[in-house]
Amino acid sequence: MSDTIFTKIIAGDIPSHKVYEDDKVFAFLDINPLSPGHTLVIPKEPAKTLDVLSDESSAAIGRALPRIARAVMAATGTDQYNILQNNGPRAHQAVFHVHFHIIPKTDGGSGLGVGWKPGNLDSVEGSALALRIAEAITN
Amino acid sequence: MSDTIFTKIIAGDIPSHKVYEDDKVFAFLDINPLSPGHTLVIPKEPAKTLDVLSDESSAAIGRALPRIARAVMAATGTDQYNILQNNGPRAHQAVFHVHFHIIPKTDGGSGLGVGWKPGNLDSVEGSALALRIAEAITN
Repeated sequence: MSDTIFTKIIAGDIPSHKVYEDDKVFAFLDINPLSPGHTLVIPKEPAKTLDVLSDESSAAIGRALPRIARAVMAATGTDQYNILQNNGPRAHQAVFHVHFHIIPKTDGGSGLGVGWKPGNLDSVEGSALALRIAEAITN
Repeated sequence: MSDTIFTKIIAGDIPSHKVYEDDKVFAFLDINPLSPGHTLVIPKEPAKTLDVLSDESSAAIGRALPRIARAVMAATGTDQYNILQNNGPRAHQAVFHVHFHIIPKTDGGSGLGVGWKPGNLDSVEGSALALRIAEAITN
């Protein structure tokens, strides 16, 4: 895949406000934050979307997220936050290198806006759909 | 911590449309989906928020997310989706057991609504904030 701005940030060719780095993970402040402490956690592996990221890189991000979240909380004083990871332009992805947002939700309301229009899952359709997903995992 | 509905779902005391299970992770269809295939991926460990979840459980979820996302894509035909994990009532958390949503974003627009009002990170303030977060991680 082609390089993105995140490839250059990991390499240090573009400066960033780095908060964490290990052999598989890099984290830095979003320069267009939704709230103070808005942090991006990315794999060094240059996968476009989560579904094509290796298990190892995805596990490494999973392992790092709680400790980075705790540090964002400690440094900003926030006690509530959203984790968001977008896949595809329709799903609000703008840089095509996997990134997890840690977005503090302030008392004043700044942070991620969540639009939620739930439906109801029909039990028969749900059973059939769950079976299709489960079979797709094991195959 | 006290039990939630998810504790009972993991135990099988409340039925669910299960799509995946391993020793640390359980996944099932959301009964109030934002779009077809809306799936919840949860740790068996009963942590309220991500910042108090163990590294091991969080890594296990990280490892499972790409394979479950691929299966949701295969079963529903969606090619775009959001991963969302909420911490705290202000951040839209309703069940106080960590859960990662996998939410397909359909052509028709159903799925997660994302509200995004970005600011600009001041370079001097950003450097100071990144240092505080980095120090909170290592300490």
